Amino acid sequence: MQGGCVLDWGLVVLKSLKYKGNALHVLDQRLLPHRVEWLCCTDATCVAKLIRDMAVRGAPAIGVAAAYGYLLAVRSALSQGRGLTVDTLDAAYRELAAARPTAVNLVWALDRMVACLQAARSLPQADRLARLEVEARGIESRDVEANLAMSQRGAALIETGAERGWVLTHCNTGALATAGQGTALGVIRDAWASGRLAGVYVDETRPWLQGSRLTAWELEQESIPYRLICDGAAASVLASGRVSWVVVGADRIAANGDTANKIGTYSLAVLARHHGVKFMVVAPRATIDRDCADGGAIEIEQRPAAEVRAIGDQLLAPADASVYNPAFDVTPAGLIDALVTEAGVLRQPDREGIARLFG
Amino acid sequence: MQGGCVLDWGLVVLKSLKYKGNALHVLDQRLLPHRVEWLCCTDATCVAKLIRDMAVRGAPAIGVAAAYGYLLAVRSALSQGRGLTVDTLDAAYRELAAARPTAVNLVWALDRMVACLQAARSLPQADRLARLEVEARGIESRDVEANLAMSQRGAALIETGAERGWVLTHCNTGALATAGQGTALGVIRDAWASGRLAGVYVDETRPWLQGSRLTAWELEQESIPYRLICDGAAASVLASGRVSWVVVGADRIAANGDTANKIGTYSLAVLARHHGVKFMVVAPRATIDRDCADGGAIEIEQRPAAEVRAIGDQLLAPADASVYNPAFDVTPAGLIDALVTEAGVLRQPDREGIARLFG
Repeated sequence: MQGGCVLDWGLVVLKSLKYKGNALHVLDQRLLPHRVEWLCCTDATCVAKLIRDMAVRGAPAIGVAAAYGYLLAVRSALSQGRGLTVDTLDAAYRELAAARPTAVNLVWALDRMVACLQAARSLPQADRLARLEVEARGIESRDVEANLAMSQRGAALIETGAERGWVLTHCNTGALATAGQGTALGVIRDAWASGRLAGVYVDETRPWLQGSRLTAWELEQESIPYRLICDGAAASVLASGRVSWVVVGADRIAANGDTANKIGTYSLAVLARHHGVKFMVVAPRATIDRDCADGGAIEIEQRPAAEVRAIGDQLLAPADASVYNPAFDVTPAGLIDALVTEAGVLRQPDREGIARLFG
Repeated sequence: MQGGCVLDWGLVVLKSLKYKGNALHVLDQRLLPHRVEWLCCTDATCVAKLIRDMAVRGAPAIGVAAAYGYLLAVRSALSQGRGLTVDTLDAAYRELAAARPTAVNLVWALDRMVACLQAARSLPQADRLARLEVEARGIESRDVEANLAMSQRGAALIETGAERGWVLTHCNTGALATAGQGTALGVIRDAWASGRLAGVYVDETRPWLQGSRLTAWELEQESIPYRLICDGAAASVLASGRVSWVVVGADRIAANGDTANKIGTYSLAVLARHHGVKFMVVAPRATIDRDCADGGAIEIEQRPAAEVRAIGDQLLAPADASVYNPAFDVTPAGLIDALVTEAGVLRQPDREGIARLFG
């Protein structure tokens, strides 16, 4: 990992990634909230490693990171005189695409970069590079805008009433998971700002504790009231009648609306339905994989046993404990009351509704 | 805490408590599976503290510990010439009873000790002490026998078929949680021994990680195949169709069958019903509180925020994170397919069935 690229930590505009000085600067989310450290990549291999090792995570954020990773590969090829074609960049594409299998935003962003390179193939090489940088920055700014649109649309679904309710969220879907203000957490920000919320229950989200480490911390930055809970406590919180909506993000949405998201999301969807609580998925269209017929076709990443056996250096279980550690689960579309995208809201999403979002 | 009472660690007969040499020796479960250390109490205050601080936990085990704690209070009173009456021991009773509020076994065991003392009030003081020691040892051996009876009854409910299934369990309900071989984990042991099981999914059980630290370790001692999972992964495991029963213990069962158990149990009950998986509660009759009309009357212990914010010295969340940390939840009787006690099995437990167990 290249050092020496320390950036200022701006609390006002919280960013998880910055492309600056021909390098991608990545906020190391594994160390939050206790340490704020930026890592710096000048090649695609470094970016792929940071995605794989979860220094940067969140489906939209890893899409943006992959786009910049591809751009860095283009810069390397140019400086090495290798020529800028889809073929010469194929190894970088594959390395980035393979970094994590479930979030489709990663491949979506890479495919946009490839299409841009093909479209620019008759231009001089320096111009191709310039076009690709514009494309990568466009993917980032498109995510910022999508976040804003989704936040407004999602917040509008949350009832305003005499008694403001609580929502419950899982994992981290905020500024740290995206290029902008977040997907589900963006909805929660806007709902809070418009006086619709009393507060937020935050699942700690084992094994990576994105709720404890990242979401609780983001909510503190914005002074939004929250209660951190163990994942197993969500059922009794939903039974209490205090929660009106469960609001989550997504890593890949199939053409029929089945949604892969952080492990534990499907549990919440079943529990929400049981308790008459509504369930909202917030994700940009880039998260929808129209080539994926249904949830059964989504590859679920299996993560290392060490993530469950230990936290940092602290062993939590027998050292050789046998572990099953899927990183995601699939929520059937039938359990989703609203799918919020930048292109519109689908109530009870299904194949026809999803197709309309792209119509 | 008095030191110098180190006992041998017997793997053959795993015990969480031993009363020996006029002292209660308690295996410090907070340090398992990494360190095996025994603590030693010679007075009731020490026992109350070990229960409160969860060095000893599990509803049946804390009942037995409380009985011995009361016995130690009797010894102290005798040596101090205070006289052995229910009144002189009232402070010790209160201190032990208040150590943890939800598991009723604790008060049940103390009330048996009080009844024994009252019945022996006409005897010389030394004889009263002897009677009380017999009573405490009887409470312990009664739990051992109850465990055996429950284990056989519960295991018999698990189908034998061409394809052996998996079960899923939560928290720790084994030798460490009882005086014997365990409640739910006792059923699992017997089901394994009789060829009914392929293996066991074990919820890690945040925040105390009794699944990771204790159940995984107990299953390793017995070479029973298991897979440790994060609590949030249980829904996708149940959706896989591999699990035939969810098997759990209980901390307090109301007169109508509503059952308080470790936080996350209710979540499993809802998920099991959703997926057509059967749900078994295994608990001795001492866990049934007939004075408690239904689950709404069960006091749910709220535990410190630090348990969710940190593991050991390692902070997992913002240092001042706002936390909601109920230690238990309540599963309505309607979600329970079988309640297994030493006195019999209730299918679809209800008020009438519970009354019959005592009839």
